[in-house]
Amino acid sequence: MDNKKINVSVLGATGYAGIELVRLLFNHENVENIAVSSVSSEGTNLNDMYKTLIGKEKFFLINQDEAIEKGDVIFSALPHGLSEEIAEKVIAKNKILIDIGADFRLTDEEDYKKYYGLEYKFKDLHKESIYGLPEFNREKIKDKKIIGNPGCYPTSIALGLYPLLSNGFVDTNCIICDSKSGVTGAGKGLSDTTHFPMCNENLSPYKIANHRHIPEIEETLSHFAGEKVKVTFVPTLLPVNRGILSTIYCDKKGDETLEEIHLKVKNFYKDEYFVDVLNLGDVANLKDVKYSNHCQISLHEDKRTNKLIVVSVIDNMVKGAAGQAIQNMNIVFGFDEKTGLELIAPAF
Amino acid sequence: MDNKKINVSVLGATGYAGIELVRLLFNHENVENIAVSSVSSEGTNLNDMYKTLIGKEKFFLINQDEAIEKGDVIFSALPHGLSEEIAEKVIAKNKILIDIGADFRLTDEEDYKKYYGLEYKFKDLHKESIYGLPEFNREKIKDKKIIGNPGCYPTSIALGLYPLLSNGFVDTNCIICDSKSGVTGAGKGLSDTTHFPMCNENLSPYKIANHRHIPEIEETLSHFAGEKVKVTFVPTLLPVNRGILSTIYCDKKGDETLEEIHLKVKNFYKDEYFVDVLNLGDVANLKDVKYSNHCQISLHEDKRTNKLIVVSVIDNMVKGAAGQAIQNMNIVFGFDEKTGLELIAPAF
Amino acid sequence: MDNKKINVSVLGATGYAGIELVRLLFNHENVENIAVSSVSSEGTNLNDMYKTLIGKEKFFLINQDEAIEKGDVIFSALPHGLSEEIAEKVIAKNKILIDIGADFRLTDEEDYKKYYGLEYKFKDLHKESIYGLPEFNREKIKDKKIIGNPGCYPTSIALGLYPLLSNGFVDTNCIICDSKSGVTGAGKGLSDTTHFPMCNENLSPYKIANHRHIPEIEETLSHFAGEKVKVTFVPTLLPVNRGILSTIYCDKKGDETLEEIHLKVKNFYKDEYFVDVLNLGDVANLKDVKYSNHCQISLHEDKRTNKLIVVSVIDNMVKGAAGQAIQNMNIVFGFDEKTGLELIAPAF
Amino acid sequence: MDNKKINVSVLGATGYAGIELVRLLFNHENVENIAVSSVSSEGTNLNDMYKTLIGKEKFFLINQDEAIEKGDVIFSALPHGLSEEIAEKVIAKNKILIDIGADFRLTDEEDYKKYYGLEYKFKDLHKESIYGLPEFNREKIKDKKIIGNPGCYPTSIALGLYPLLSNGFVDTNCIICDSKSGVTGAGKGLSDTTHFPMCNENLSPYKIANHRHIPEIEETLSHFAGEKVKVTFVPTLLPVNRGILSTIYCDKKGDETLEEIHLKVKNFYKDEYFVDVLNLGDVANLKDVKYSNHCQISLHEDKRTNKLIVVSVIDNMVKGAAGQAIQNMNIVFGFDEKTGLELIAPAF
Repeated sequence: MDNKKINVSVLGATGYAGIELVRLLFNHENVENIAVSSVSSEGTNLNDMYKTLIGKEKFFLINQDEAIEKGDVIFSALPHGLSEEIAEKVIAKNKILIDIGADFRLTDEEDYKKYYGLEYKFKDLHKESIYGLPEFNREKIKDKKIIGNPGCYPTSIALGLYPLLSNGFVDTNCIICDSKSGVTGAGKGLSDTTHFPMCNENLSPYKIANHRHIPEIEETLSHFAGEKVKVTFVPTLLPVNRGILSTIYCDKKGDETLEEIHLKVKNFYKDEYFVDVLNLGDVANLKDVKYSNHCQISLHEDKRTNKLIVVSVIDNMVKGAAGQAIQNMNIVFGFDEKTGLELIAPAF
Repeated sequence: MDNKKINVSVLGATGYAGIELVRLLFNHENVENIAVSSVSSEGTNLNDMYKTLIGKEKFFLINQDEAIEKGDVIFSALPHGLSEEIAEKVIAKNKILIDIGADFRLTDEEDYKKYYGLEYKFKDLHKESIYGLPEFNREKIKDKKIIGNPGCYPTSIALGLYPLLSNGFVDTNCIICDSKSGVTGAGKGLSDTTHFPMCNENLSPYKIANHRHIPEIEETLSHFAGEKVKVTFVPTLLPVNRGILSTIYCDKKGDETLEEIHLKVKNFYKDEYFVDVLNLGDVANLKDVKYSNHCQISLHEDKRTNKLIVVSVIDNMVKGAAGQAIQNMNIVFGFDEKTGLELIAPAF
Repeated sequence: MDNKKINVSVLGATGYAGIELVRLLFNHENVENIAVSSVSSEGTNLNDMYKTLIGKEKFFLINQDEAIEKGDVIFSALPHGLSEEIAEKVIAKNKILIDIGADFRLTDEEDYKKYYGLEYKFKDLHKESIYGLPEFNREKIKDKKIIGNPGCYPTSIALGLYPLLSNGFVDTNCIICDSKSGVTGAGKGLSDTTHFPMCNENLSPYKIANHRHIPEIEETLSHFAGEKVKVTFVPTLLPVNRGILSTIYCDKKGDETLEEIHLKVKNFYKDEYFVDVLNLGDVANLKDVKYSNHCQISLHEDKRTNKLIVVSVIDNMVKGAAGQAIQNMNIVFGFDEKTGLELIAPAF
Repeated sequence: MDNKKINVSVLGATGYAGIELVRLLFNHENVENIAVSSVSSEGTNLNDMYKTLIGKEKFFLINQDEAIEKGDVIFSALPHGLSEEIAEKVIAKNKILIDIGADFRLTDEEDYKKYYGLEYKFKDLHKESIYGLPEFNREKIKDKKIIGNPGCYPTSIALGLYPLLSNGFVDTNCIICDSKSGVTGAGKGLSDTTHFPMCNENLSPYKIANHRHIPEIEETLSHFAGEKVKVTFVPTLLPVNRGILSTIYCDKKGDETLEEIHLKVKNFYKDEYFVDVLNLGDVANLKDVKYSNHCQISLHEDKRTNKLIVVSVIDNMVKGAAGQAIQNMNIVFGFDEKTGLELIAPAF
């Protein structure tokens, strides 16, 4: 099975998630050809825009329809609202769509309308899609043609809380997520906030309790808990290129000690290659997952206030975007889930 | 009164708080002479250690007793446990001690023992000392000879919560402080954590729910609230040189709207030169207070979860250490409180 | 004399040089009022754009003519090509213009045409102007109404080479200036190059041997040498906010030893408050001058290749722009040259 | 041939070059087992020191002799002066030594004595060793048992100048190398210079014209030129984790235009997978090679001063250390030279 070769296409290849996909797919042993597409730069080479590609094969930017034609699987790294039409075309050709954007993440259209300001154009497609968090939906992903790749913040929070909520270790009424993200999360579009002198040596919370990822986070956590979960979510822009660190504050429930909880969490993830549960006493750090597809989780307790505190870190561009998308591709095509994603995070 | 000139002494002048004191005192119009002392570098010039002082007068490092002799006010920027004996000597000479360390911050000796591992050697001294948060204790500071300058984290949290707790806007049972600090907070001592390649492009929570500043924070907040307050406190090391940003999550109490609360908070601080309450909608940012003695505060609400969220920023080395110490000096000596501290934060 | 109060105006106050001028002028004891102007933001408060100004007096942005009317001295922090007309108006009112831009830096109009693509509109004005490098032109500055404030790169290079060229210690035929600048040098305009993820953890030489500062550098150095000097100049964008470090490679001439040269250089600058010559063996560092008006210089020798190497550092926004402009103002108005500029660089 | 599996050993595995070797070797398809050794941490797991290795196989740190026993090839990432004895043992067992340190880089023992302060203990070994710059010595490397892996600065400079010197395009008398390096180049040892607040937002030239890499640079360049080459070399510590950018200034010789020279340089490297010659007009940037084994080179001319300027960038830990060492291993064992090193540099 592992010798099977497929062709892949990346739509929106010139954006940050797109170029990261190209970087990771390039060394994937089951990938034969990579077609790349960009509406704004069609007709040029991706290599001319990203000098990191010099010396590699030329990645010529074709149009979307051609790219859909060429791929067995289509990665859509387009702004939200643009992937539904892509999905329609991909499904018509009986191919696979993995959408890095937000169009297929939410099951509740009302949330999509409220937070993204758009309606679903092809409502039926959403019934055929699945939320692509492998650690939660692995079995369902295998049979789906449309995969909504999770958002970066939701991935870090979901993986941190999955075992706690599904085991009933924490209260579902008061969960606070203080998440810090590197600047690549804002993409390659220019803004005052991401202008170097404004961003460097700075720290800025933004969209406080008002971020688009909130419904996605709550929907996923509610699945884990089997009941409605509400979170307070504050994202903060960090002066680093990559990575998300979520500090999650929960009210502890039940009589288990931290040691017992830790053991259960460790056991919960024991077969998950990409989720590392740190030893008690250790604290998860951003740098330990950068450029890798791993999520690292550490557990802490504030006995004085009866809080359980989770620190969860991922690379926002890998496990939070391109890497998780490839993980989903591996699942759909029956490849070893680790293929192309075994990179060890550099120590520095 | 403002023409009065005093002599000041800085003990521990070669440390980060010490050198910052020298920098700020140098341009203070009421300061005549600055004596500097350092146990480890006695007999050398501070200028040789910090090339930022080249071209200025020579700061020759003398011993502590000489420095105490020379100053009308003694700033002690020594490690905790060393300032009590200094205080004894200073008081004997009827001079003023402003302690940048932790020895005179806590009224409860049990907390000091528990978190700092030491006992008070001169218990009587602590009755004569005052916690030097000017916005809270201004009147009491005027008459005291020993001032315990607040810690950096506690300053950012106390100023953010003072009007909310004293007005009863928030519940005292569930306050979560997620505080991020620049690396100068760790001082000039070398460590793996502050080695550039380990710290740069990284983010590391540490001493989770276990930091020495916890009793100081709770004691101060309890004063504000008039009842016992407990906080969950998680500090995080940021890859920037300076600044603390505290994101504080509270359960909202009462029927006031955010607009009403904001108005009261703005009014609460209307005479405080160093505390800026931002307009609703704006978010406090680290860079807007760096190198200044200001604290900036922004207020936010998560209606969905009934949380009041405060973002409070200070420069850890100025309002969080040397600047606040000078503010205290100004109060004690009857100088305009702003003297030497009117610097506008650089925009970048 | 020092009690005299003047009014100042800053045109282009919303740009990086403009806001830095406001910051420094705010604490200048001889400055009564600061009028600020901005074509793009007229009618708003500067305080709303830069939250560092919260709590200070309101800086209301008026139009240029009003601002010229209000100031005894006008600082023009406008893009090149726009200051000539300002100068015409300022001169007509018998006031002083200090131009932070490039319009009055070059004596040779051909160079201006070649490097800036514009012609002089008011040729006579240029005869009345002076190049505002105080260490070189102090006496002439006193009597001039138009001062062309030096560029940032040229300031660092000129101060580094002045004593060497005027003493004939180095060959004028082969001078190589490898200058590294913080990102504020590029101003507040957004660009791919200054987008945080492209700039952070990166280093990019640019405009190699082709930068607009070349004629200014060569003109100044030629004055020092008394003969035509040519330089190879390569600027490089550094991932820091502030500061310029120029490494300057010269062919050593004459028989003086490095020790003798160092002594002469130290003596040359002995009365210059803002130029620090480091001890032999020490190396000038960016951080030691940040946020200050100082230039620090260190001298080195490569005996093996007979090179004299100078490292010269300034803060590009202070000695390289706003600070030097204020220094020039102090000279023109007969204030102590250090007024408003005595800030010690923070140690971190 | 490519199916051959070998065992490798890394001595000094806990240092920066060592852990980078482990990271890269881990995904090398011809590597069966990796043995790791560390004198200071023998008996512990490398995974406990570097949390980036969590979830991977355990890397148990054994002693040097065991490690030598286990490997077909031994990478020595030890401080200089310690690899000679290792070499003696490795040779005795008819195995391969690739020394990341400096012990086998210089052919002239006098230089080693002068710059490293040590004598060769096993002089004969040096006759059997080769300088492991594949682009220069590929054929010779194939048959050698001891490979002196080039230093990081020398690699960046040598690759930048090789085609220019061997074609006689530049004068050998006046070559100036202004090289900027990320902080990982200083290793994991703590120092004031690499303490975050001293290093961040700073830039510091060091060991001006006095760095240990000078003899290595000159020896290599002299081989290229066929005559004695002297360079002025100034290294500068950059506030970034990784990467070296060398700006190299040469006097242009001969009548070839820049276009002609560029064409020859491009052609010179046309078969070198790891050396990318940029198009004229483009400038090599640090970020385009980070985490990759590539060297990127751009060529520039200053017609006014008749200089040829080369900008050469590498990742100091990959092409400047661990990656090049693996490239050498691939050559010795007859693997495809790219194996394990095809990673594309991340775009950010």
